[in-house]
Amino acid sequence: MSHYDDLMAFERQTQALEQIAGRLGWDQETVMPRGAAPQRAEEAEALSHVLHARHTDPRVGEWLQSIDAASLDPVGQANLRHIRRRFDRQTRVPVALAGELARVTAESQGLWAEARAADDFAGFAPTLARIVALKRDEAQALAAGGDPYDALLDDYEPGASAAELEAMFAALRPRLVALRDRVLGAEHQPEPLTGKFNEKAQMKLTRDLARAFGYDMAHGRVDKAVHPFSSGSGLDVRITTRTSPTDPFGAVYSTIHETGHACYEQNIDRAHLLTPLGQGVSMGVHESQSRIYENQLGRSQAFTGWLFERFRVAFGEMNVADAESFWRAANRLHPGYIRTESDEVQYNLHVLLRFDLERDMIAGKLAVADLEEAWNARFEADFGVAVDKASHGCLQDVHWSVGLFGYFPTYSLGNVYAGCLYKTMSAEMPDLDEHLARGDAGRVTAWLGERVQRHGGLYEPKELITRACGKAPDEAPLLDYLEEKFAALYRL
Amino acid sequence: MSHYDDLMAFERQTQALEQIAGRLGWDQETVMPRGAAPQRAEEAEALSHVLHARHTDPRVGEWLQSIDAASLDPVGQANLRHIRRRFDRQTRVPVALAGELARVTAESQGLWAEARAADDFAGFAPTLARIVALKRDEAQALAAGGDPYDALLDDYEPGASAAELEAMFAALRPRLVALRDRVLGAEHQPEPLTGKFNEKAQMKLTRDLARAFGYDMAHGRVDKAVHPFSSGSGLDVRITTRTSPTDPFGAVYSTIHETGHACYEQNIDRAHLLTPLGQGVSMGVHESQSRIYENQLGRSQAFTGWLFERFRVAFGEMNVADAESFWRAANRLHPGYIRTESDEVQYNLHVLLRFDLERDMIAGKLAVADLEEAWNARFEADFGVAVDKASHGCLQDVHWSVGLFGYFPTYSLGNVYAGCLYKTMSAEMPDLDEHLARGDAGRVTAWLGERVQRHGGLYEPKELITRACGKAPDEAPLLDYLEEKFAALYRL
Repeated sequence: MSHYDDLMAFERQTQALEQIAGRLGWDQETVMPRGAAPQRAEEAEALSHVLHARHTDPRVGEWLQSIDAASLDPVGQANLRHIRRRFDRQTRVPVALAGELARVTAESQGLWAEARAADDFAGFAPTLARIVALKRDEAQALAAGGDPYDALLDDYEPGASAAELEAMFAALRPRLVALRDRVLGAEHQPEPLTGKFNEKAQMKLTRDLARAFGYDMAHGRVDKAVHPFSSGSGLDVRITTRTSPTDPFGAVYSTIHETGHACYEQNIDRAHLLTPLGQGVSMGVHESQSRIYENQLGRSQAFTGWLFERFRVAFGEMNVADAESFWRAANRLHPGYIRTESDEVQYNLHVLLRFDLERDMIAGKLAVADLEEAWNARFEADFGVAVDKASHGCLQDVHWSVGLFGYFPTYSLGNVYAGCLYKTMSAEMPDLDEHLARGDAGRVTAWLGERVQRHGGLYEPKELITRACGKAPDEAPLLDYLEEKFAALYRL
Repeated sequence: MSHYDDLMAFERQTQALEQIAGRLGWDQETVMPRGAAPQRAEEAEALSHVLHARHTDPRVGEWLQSIDAASLDPVGQANLRHIRRRFDRQTRVPVALAGELARVTAESQGLWAEARAADDFAGFAPTLARIVALKRDEAQALAAGGDPYDALLDDYEPGASAAELEAMFAALRPRLVALRDRVLGAEHQPEPLTGKFNEKAQMKLTRDLARAFGYDMAHGRVDKAVHPFSSGSGLDVRITTRTSPTDPFGAVYSTIHETGHACYEQNIDRAHLLTPLGQGVSMGVHESQSRIYENQLGRSQAFTGWLFERFRVAFGEMNVADAESFWRAANRLHPGYIRTESDEVQYNLHVLLRFDLERDMIAGKLAVADLEEAWNARFEADFGVAVDKASHGCLQDVHWSVGLFGYFPTYSLGNVYAGCLYKTMSAEMPDLDEHLARGDAGRVTAWLGERVQRHGGLYEPKELITRACGKAPDEAPLLDYLEEKFAALYRL
């Protein structure tokens, strides 16, 4: 066996153990008995110790040193790139710091949930301040002289930089704000969908939708969870959804969104199973898949036409009487505090606010004690509404409380990538809407499978999108799509 | 920190990882997508490598050498005893042999299932022969000069020996055979329960039964599985059950059986959580809990009286018209090939057959090629019926195909222990039947919790039963109970 083979054999077991960690997370959010939580915390911690020891195993360092990358094929080189990146990152962070971060963030999620329930930012601020301090130390260690925020970002979006993202948001912001203002001031406002919607019928519908978008039930399953997610790679990729008796769109679009994530994981070339290439390459690319399924496809006029008929069968008569009103209801802009409930137009403005604030915290320009005030001022400036309570403001997202700094901007990057992919896909598939109007997303998902999903971690994110679209990604396709769609929707 | 503290900190993580392995097994049998099997096999193998490495970690050997057991309290000594036993056993088996056994038995379960479905013993014999050869090597390595079969037995029932078990079966056999013959020849044969029984109502009933026997749903859950089992320890102990439209007793008694196993695990003193004492001490003691719940309590006239009324509510009118006929139906003896479907009287005769044959295989006195013939001859001699096909004979149980030799006799040991516990419990609780007649098993399970379950692995199996009953275990209580019960049932 060559050193490369040794490394890959070791890595394969590591990947298998990481899949187990994902499965434990799924179990915890879906089927775990509620009294099991303290024991589960110890189980998860034990497994994470095992994984950390494997990620930083000195043998991995020796193998990496002794392997001549130039002698490998592109797959081997990509594997090596992923393993080296992880090894370098994890060995750069002092063990004591990594342990302290793990301990603090394991506890802080519960504290955040309590603080959010009590709308008490001041009570949570000392915990968050501790997390920010530790993340700054971690960023310093990881950056090795480079930009600390970029070093954090690299965990979620390899190769991205704050400077690039700043340019992206600078391109997005003015046109999104202008569009939002035109839409909210438009004369023809859509009527929201109201009524009571049977939750069993919603669950049945979510499974049909997942299948319609190409989700493979032989390698997955759909369950309920408080916060929907997708988990696992390869042959076992599970999604969760939620239902609400008054808001069936929540079930529909969180299902389609998670189906996008899950199809990406399910459709990776099986040759990459349990290797570093056997999972989505970055958070941005992952989000491009979930968002294109959810928005460009799932909220299209063609697809909502089909969905309207399905709704009538599942729920009977509704206040929304025709397919066009239904399409408008599914795409309705509304002022609101909450990012995850936002519409396509305003979503990226919510993200931008977080991007700016978290960069300031990591740079030491914004003290955590001042975060709530800064958030509220910025929110009112950007959205024209005063934040009424912390759970509608800076306590709404779990991310910072578990140390996820540098994660938020990947959501917008995913939207930009989705815009590029949709433009290319539409151009190459003139009959796309005819398929969607029959509730048939098979060809669409096959296109994404071929261009994006099957490659897994083979190409770096930007290279992957460039190959898929024939040109480097930029913001224009997303903005053009939104302006055109909402002009039609709101009869601007 | 002392060496003992170091050892226990290491062990705690090991125990947590073992709980994860149990959870993966549960997942596989209940919720796993069917296409995930190949990936899951790799996941389970990776985790089992991690566990083996921890079990045989040289540091454990050093800690064990440097700790003065006499300086520890009884809990510490018991922990040390368990860890030392496992370390000695796992380090005695050569790594290559352990690996080969893991590989062969991982594959053989599938081969066995295929052979059983095809009633093809000859096709499976070479695989089984390989397993027996490997188990003989393993037994030799473990025995270190002692008896090889005893060395295998020790994995499931520490401290037990084939000689003792032989004496146990010698005491059981004549009285069981005599009782069986009288019962099957009796004039008043009970009518079996027949009809169609709603499976949803069965599932609801199983959850009520589990609760009635003290199962804590905040630390567990009930799901369906092809072969019911209980899994997990401490704060997360899950059971599974099965339903059949024609046989509701299957759902009822497999649920109560698994509830017995699960209550044992749930009721262990929380101070032992994630330590070697935090799980049932042996297979025999485990089976004593499942069997006393299932048989002495669950099939008692008092409890079936209550159950009869529950059946009427759940399923409507039945062919069995009164509580006494219902009790007789639930305890009916019937000739049959299958151990797991056997009644209380014949069950231990099924086990004895396996005990004798497996000892001969491990001793090299019975070649696997001759197993089917030996089984069929013995079965006809013991049960008076010719075996018609291998799935009714030596292919019916999974145990040998996955290398479980020395496991079967613990079933009978469990029955004997259950007999002893029931005798003591009845003597100390004169109103036991009044409680059971109200469907209230709370006091019974509290008694078992106090006498047996809370101790976990603190005492060796026989010592535990001796403490619980005030005298050493023997076969007479089980036999007396069976003779008295079946004399009444069959009006002998």
